[in-house]
Amino acid sequence: MTSDTSSDFRAQFERIGAWIEAYYRDPGRYPVLSRAEPGDLIRALPARPPQEGEAFDAILADFERLIVPGITHWNHPRFFAYFAISAAPITVMAEALAAALDANAMAWRTSPAATELEDVTLGWLREMLGLPEAFHGIVYDTASISGFTALAAAREALDLDVRARGLAGRDLPTLRVYITEHTHSHIEKGAIALGIGRENVVKVPCDPDTFAMRPDALARLLDEDRARGMRAMAVTATVGTTSTTSSDPVAAIREITRERGVWLHVDAAYAGPAAILPEFRWLLDGAHGADSIVLNPHKWLFVPVDLSVLYIRHLDLLRRTFSLEAVYLELPDTGVRNYMDYGLQLGRRFRALKLWFAMRTLGVRGMQDALRAHIALAQELAQWVAAEAGWEISAPHPLSVVCFRHVPPGLDDAACDAHNLAIMDAVNATGEAYLSNTRLHGRFVLRIAIGNDRTTRDDVLAVWKLLRDAARQRVLATVTP
Amino acid sequence: MTSDTSSDFRAQFERIGAWIEAYYRDPGRYPVLSRAEPGDLIRALPARPPQEGEAFDAILADFERLIVPGITHWNHPRFFAYFAISAAPITVMAEALAAALDANAMAWRTSPAATELEDVTLGWLREMLGLPEAFHGIVYDTASISGFTALAAAREALDLDVRARGLAGRDLPTLRVYITEHTHSHIEKGAIALGIGRENVVKVPCDPDTFAMRPDALARLLDEDRARGMRAMAVTATVGTTSTTSSDPVAAIREITRERGVWLHVDAAYAGPAAILPEFRWLLDGAHGADSIVLNPHKWLFVPVDLSVLYIRHLDLLRRTFSLEAVYLELPDTGVRNYMDYGLQLGRRFRALKLWFAMRTLGVRGMQDALRAHIALAQELAQWVAAEAGWEISAPHPLSVVCFRHVPPGLDDAACDAHNLAIMDAVNATGEAYLSNTRLHGRFVLRIAIGNDRTTRDDVLAVWKLLRDAARQRVLATVTP
Repeated sequence: MTSDTSSDFRAQFERIGAWIEAYYRDPGRYPVLSRAEPGDLIRALPARPPQEGEAFDAILADFERLIVPGITHWNHPRFFAYFAISAAPITVMAEALAAALDANAMAWRTSPAATELEDVTLGWLREMLGLPEAFHGIVYDTASISGFTALAAAREALDLDVRARGLAGRDLPTLRVYITEHTHSHIEKGAIALGIGRENVVKVPCDPDTFAMRPDALARLLDEDRARGMRAMAVTATVGTTSTTSSDPVAAIREITRERGVWLHVDAAYAGPAAILPEFRWLLDGAHGADSIVLNPHKWLFVPVDLSVLYIRHLDLLRRTFSLEAVYLELPDTGVRNYMDYGLQLGRRFRALKLWFAMRTLGVRGMQDALRAHIALAQELAQWVAAEAGWEISAPHPLSVVCFRHVPPGLDDAACDAHNLAIMDAVNATGEAYLSNTRLHGRFVLRIAIGNDRTTRDDVLAVWKLLRDAARQRVLATVTP
Repeated sequence: MTSDTSSDFRAQFERIGAWIEAYYRDPGRYPVLSRAEPGDLIRALPARPPQEGEAFDAILADFERLIVPGITHWNHPRFFAYFAISAAPITVMAEALAAALDANAMAWRTSPAATELEDVTLGWLREMLGLPEAFHGIVYDTASISGFTALAAAREALDLDVRARGLAGRDLPTLRVYITEHTHSHIEKGAIALGIGRENVVKVPCDPDTFAMRPDALARLLDEDRARGMRAMAVTATVGTTSTTSSDPVAAIREITRERGVWLHVDAAYAGPAAILPEFRWLLDGAHGADSIVLNPHKWLFVPVDLSVLYIRHLDLLRRTFSLEAVYLELPDTGVRNYMDYGLQLGRRFRALKLWFAMRTLGVRGMQDALRAHIALAQELAQWVAAEAGWEISAPHPLSVVCFRHVPPGLDDAACDAHNLAIMDAVNATGEAYLSNTRLHGRFVLRIAIGNDRTTRDDVLAVWKLLRDAARQRVLATVTP
């Protein structure tokens, strides 16, 4: 063994368990947003690697002394930025087991259970979401990769022989991808990577109140582009945008794409999990006719990063896009699927294990209860904001995210933006809460995302008080000479 | 909390530790290659998810009863397939801590320590490898992604405005990527994804004895393609090919690419780590002038999958390739690097933690000792094979992989291939060892990769005996009426 003897292993592992237990007991004792200054850790660590091995105690001590202060605590009950997340504690054990087994789920035979547990858990999840069986699920690391994979399949579906002949140096039409200004940036990044070009990622106008794609505008743009000789590769509809959790009208978009033979990809990375609630199953209704759907269990189904899921109707097409034969990877033809043939990555961690652990520990009901609680807290926050003089809700808030801002009288647009930025920075600087922002119609708005399972009503009250206090102090500072 | 109370957490975590300790004590007690039949696990698990949460004991029991039999044991000391790997036990604890913190290393501020520990550990590794400081390291999940990222930067380096305008519907030259038949398939897959097209991935002829790219042939192909109006996007040279661990003559290739202004990417995913040995530092000598280098600590530097490293000279170019501004991700400009801007993936696990734990626990010397031991075992095996009548070494074996086959008299090529396949299948079916194969000059050859830290001389002797026994029985079965 290159390392500590096995008798040490268990004692050391138990100390890690004690550390995590203490951490989980009260992650709220740390500043949410790390107070580290750029370069702090680099300056604190030696410039050169140790020649000789060091003791476990020294490493764990440095972890606590040097690493933890440089962590922004996504587990903190008052982490409200981006999308708040939390993993069921048992999933940490699943990750430890997966790392210990160190199985590569590239091919069925390199660990049959890894491939088949992926099939089983994603079958369960499909049923929980009410998706048709025509969708086959595959695990990837991030929505960036799942979405990229869907777009790559959409490119291959054009039957332009792109896999074999590429895109350059040929007489091909310009390829276009349709999104909105609220679509997550990974779709644009994926299109750039696939050789589509940023200027061919078309932003379809949105309804100004709902922030949802306008189907009439989509139809018009598709037809205009076609008339100009361009070829539509994919339309991406979002269920639960990052800024406001708005949803594009997927069913109407599906009609438009079906008539025109265009791939419909649905990005439900954040909001898709909410469809496990009967009262939110409608979120994915329109997506039943889509070609591909992405959702992220590591966002809102209680597994740690990373685990993203792509449901796709066209498994053979996906295989045609990515599979290659390598002489050093000849496998017996036993009719099994080797998921290395269905994506960019050859190496694949055993990610399904943590999803299985989470699903079994929580049960469908446990996951539903947690999601309902997050949504209820967000709705309550929205009521408080709406009822408070000088504050306004900036967007509909059907799920667990609320966008709002402080609008004191007498500030022009630019000053109001600066004012809300200052409020956000003041709250984040307290270390008591962490929120992020977005822009709607170009205006800076505050954004509170609830999705951490430790977050209580008191935590939401606390950030709301911090925000009002910061706003009041800003206003006082402005009017006081 | 969605799950078990924290008082349960510690006791459960300790049971996981006990399980892993017992597993690590003797992974050799399991069949190396899982004996599962296709569908075994799917049939054993319920078709629907549990409505109510289940107890930890039931889940752990099912893990042992249903999952473990479906695992192919990469930890088994007689796992000799693909590239054998092993993780330092402490890295399992690092993965548990990373999952518990659940920090997303997408931006500096979302956990400064995650970004900076990546900088520190990859600085250490760069020094261990003797690479110039002009190389900046970034962690990705797999070589598939690291290599894809390097190729994406190479495409952007063409200054054809591909990011903005794409590849299709334009008057662009055909883009070409140069590899050999021994280059790992992820380069071809990456080129397909980037819109280059499989037929524009040019296989440069190799020397028939060394399996290394012929620089004269590369120069000729580059010049011919240029004369035909094509544009070279990248040349990939491999240090340690997957089939035989052959290395392309990187320094000579560098001269050719430099004269012609072509990006040189070096894939050292497996063999790069061997450059931490003074006697193998020459492996990367030629790569000092490359534009990008990939190596995989999860292959041969004792961290579990996944952790791959890209060293690149042109960080600004990489940022230009991938960065996008999103209104929901506005960050203060503090001069820090946000690694989400340097790759396809927005979400990033805190992978540097396990590399830091491994480097500190083993020290440079511990890693060097382990690599030397693996190489020595492979050299000893090669001697045994070379000395045995009826067996032949199929390729040079400078590192920890040996390719060979049994060549009984009187078999034609096809029969000899079938004979060696049967030998391999017979050995793998014993559950006592697991090896894979490759093809050289079209011929089936057996391949033994040593890289698991538990592998002893007795384990190598054991697989060698299994192979000879299987060969003897095959020959006897053939000659006996």
